[in-house]
Amino acid sequence: MHHTNMVKSKRVCTLLLRVLALCATIAAAIVMGTSHEKSSFFTIQFEAKYNHTPAFTYFLIVNVIGGVYSLLVLFFPAESLLWRFVVALDVVITMLLTSGVSAALAIAYVGKKGNSYAGWLPICGQVEGYCHQVGGALATGFAGVIIYMLILLYSLHSAIHPLHL
Amino acid sequence: MHHTNMVKSKRVCTLLLRVLALCATIAAAIVMGTSHEKSSFFTIQFEAKYNHTPAFTYFLIVNVIGGVYSLLVLFFPAESLLWRFVVALDVVITMLLTSGVSAALAIAYVGKKGNSYAGWLPICGQVEGYCHQVGGALATGFAGVIIYMLILLYSLHSAIHPLHL
Repeated sequence: MHHTNMVKSKRVCTLLLRVLALCATIAAAIVMGTSHEKSSFFTIQFEAKYNHTPAFTYFLIVNVIGGVYSLLVLFFPAESLLWRFVVALDVVITMLLTSGVSAALAIAYVGKKGNSYAGWLPICGQVEGYCHQVGGALATGFAGVIIYMLILLYSLHSAIHPLHL
Repeated sequence: MHHTNMVKSKRVCTLLLRVLALCATIAAAIVMGTSHEKSSFFTIQFEAKYNHTPAFTYFLIVNVIGGVYSLLVLFFPAESLLWRFVVALDVVITMLLTSGVSAALAIAYVGKKGNSYAGWLPICGQVEGYCHQVGGALATGFAGVIIYMLILLYSLHSAIHPLHL
């Protein structure tokens, strides 16, 4: 009986983490995908959009992949052979999400601070709303990475100490 | 007897992967750390160095961390309790290396191609040798990430199918 309760509470915890991961990845993709601002500097029309920056497009794509995967995993039948591959897939998805957030963050940092050595000027002063929205997408994407890390460490703990469940 | 051979071949394979990971991370750190070029454009002195770009400094740091960790793991005594944490540490190191390579690659891409929307010009034309060396560091760092992914998937396989070893 005690054992059954442990199994149940483990399932609830994993399920909760996977639902949170689904929410975070989809939210990050939507917030990044809708980031868009038009601005004018004297007579020059200036438009900022996520797909002007390859790193932001990559961030959007990996979060969509992460979201779709998180959704599919929720509907895997409990007896499916696919569960054998879920931990390996979790590793790959965690690495993809990590690389998406890191690449986007590196570019966002240049957008915010510029790089005087390379002569790249910061652009956040011109398109402040856009920058805030990208910042929100990055924060949400980072939450998704942390949740996936927890899922991974949790699965590892269960796999290495199967008797504790 | 057959079982003992499997255990041995598994140990040799893991050891080989860990030595390769050590070489790749240390090489990536050294190649990035020594990247440096002076150039002049008419009368303007121009210097390119890894620590002018926060993403490259981050890449160097995570590869040094990865290298030190890879070295320490080689000397863990076989009976140590630390082995319980090694898979979890492998997850964290893999994520750190992934984020380092991704951030540096995102910036290197802007250095190579520029970003016309943001008004950031490519700089690789002025400091070609520097760009090639950074490219080499990125390729080596990427190899380190792939090796760590293999180590992780291999440990997972062993943890989930302990009878196969």
